[in-house]
Amino acid sequence: MEKLPQKTVERLSQYRRLLMRYQYLDKPYIFSRDLASMLKINPVHVRRDLMLLGVSGSHSKGYDVQNLIRQISLKLECGAGKSTCIIGFGHTGRAALEIFAADFTPMNVKAVFDTSPKSINKSFYNVPCYSMEKMVSIIEEQNISLAILTEADEELENLINLLIALGINGILNLTSAQLSLPSGYHLEEFDLITAMIKLAYFSGK
Amino acid sequence: MEKLPQKTVERLSQYRRLLMRYQYLDKPYIFSRDLASMLKINPVHVRRDLMLLGVSGSHSKGYDVQNLIRQISLKLECGAGKSTCIIGFGHTGRAALEIFAADFTPMNVKAVFDTSPKSINKSFYNVPCYSMEKMVSIIEEQNISLAILTEADEELENLINLLIALGINGILNLTSAQLSLPSGYHLEEFDLITAMIKLAYFSGK
Repeated sequence: MEKLPQKTVERLSQYRRLLMRYQYLDKPYIFSRDLASMLKINPVHVRRDLMLLGVSGSHSKGYDVQNLIRQISLKLECGAGKSTCIIGFGHTGRAALEIFAADFTPMNVKAVFDTSPKSINKSFYNVPCYSMEKMVSIIEEQNISLAILTEADEELENLINLLIALGINGILNLTSAQLSLPSGYHLEEFDLITAMIKLAYFSGK
Repeated sequence: MEKLPQKTVERLSQYRRLLMRYQYLDKPYIFSRDLASMLKINPVHVRRDLMLLGVSGSHSKGYDVQNLIRQISLKLECGAGKSTCIIGFGHTGRAALEIFAADFTPMNVKAVFDTSPKSINKSFYNVPCYSMEKMVSIIEEQNISLAILTEADEELENLINLLIALGINGILNLTSAQLSLPSGYHLEEFDLITAMIKLAYFSGK
C-alpha cells in the first residue's frame, strides 16, 4: 500500500489529537469548518483529508466524532502491531510510558530497559522493565521494531549500532544528543532545548 | 535588533547541541565541513551561519569548539534573562527541569507549580515548587514571561487565559492537548503521540 505524505500524516494526527479532547465536551458531532478553524488550517485541506478517510458527515450535524477518531486511527495504522521498547526509565522514559498508556490506541510498548535495580523486574502500566543485559534477547523474542531513546551517554553510538543489528528500524530520539541513522531507517527527534531556545528567542520583544 | 529567521535559529541550535556533545571527545577544534557532514546539511549553510556569528576558524585546525558554543549561545540569547516557569511537576515536568538543569546555559527556570503536597515547598535543582494558588503572585513578582505546560486538564483554556493576562508571552506545550494562542504569542509544541504515530507509520514496510 502506498504511504500517505508526511504532512497528511501530521494533519490526521492533529485531528485525532483534537478530537480526543473534543469528545470529553459531550458533543458527539463536529463540522469540518470547526475542525479547520480550531487548528487554524484551510478548511479545504480538512475536507480533502476526511474524504481520503472515506467518512462522510451530515449536512446538519457534521461528522461523528467517535467514528472520525476510529477511522483516523485505522488509516494511520495506530497500534497496528509494531512493537516498541523504551530505553532508559528516568523521568523522560516514565513520561513517555505514561502518555502512551493513557492514549486510547495501544502503542504496543512491550518492554522498558533500565540500569536501576529499583525498576528492573517490575511492571509499569503492565509493561515489564528489564535490565540492559536482557535487551538483546527481549528485542529478538518480542520482535520489537521501534525504540524510544530517553537517555544519552558516551555509549550511544554503540547502542544505535546494536539496535540496528537487532532489527530496529525506527527510533524516536528524546535525548539531547544529535543522532543520525543510516538511510532506510526512520528517525523522529525532539530536542527540548532547541524548542526552548526558539521560544525564548521569538517570544516578546 | 532584527530577529534571525526561524530556520537559522534551528540550525544554530543544532550546531550548539552537536558541539556540546563533541566537546567531551577531547577534540578542541572542528572543521565546518565536519559539522556539516555530521548534521547532513550543506557546508555552504554552515559557513554562512558561522560568518554570521563573526567567528573565524584556522585553516589547519578549524574552529575552536568552546568559542563556537559561547558565540552561538550569545547569538541565540540563551539564558538572556527571560524567566520561565514549569506548570505541572509529574514525570514530564521533572524531565524538563532535569534537562534544563543539566544544560550549561541557565534557562532561568524560576518556579515550578504543582498540586501535590509531596512537591510543594521543596526545591529541585535549586528551583522552588509552589502550589497552584501561588501562581499569580509568583509569576508577577518574578517577572516570568515563559511557561512550560506539562499537564492537560479540562481547565486548560482558563489556565492559558490566566497566563496571558499575567504577561506570559511564550508557551512550550508538552501536553497532548491542542493549543492555540492569540497572534503575537509564541507557541512551541511537541506531541509525543504524533511523533510516535509518524515513526510507526513510516518505518519499515
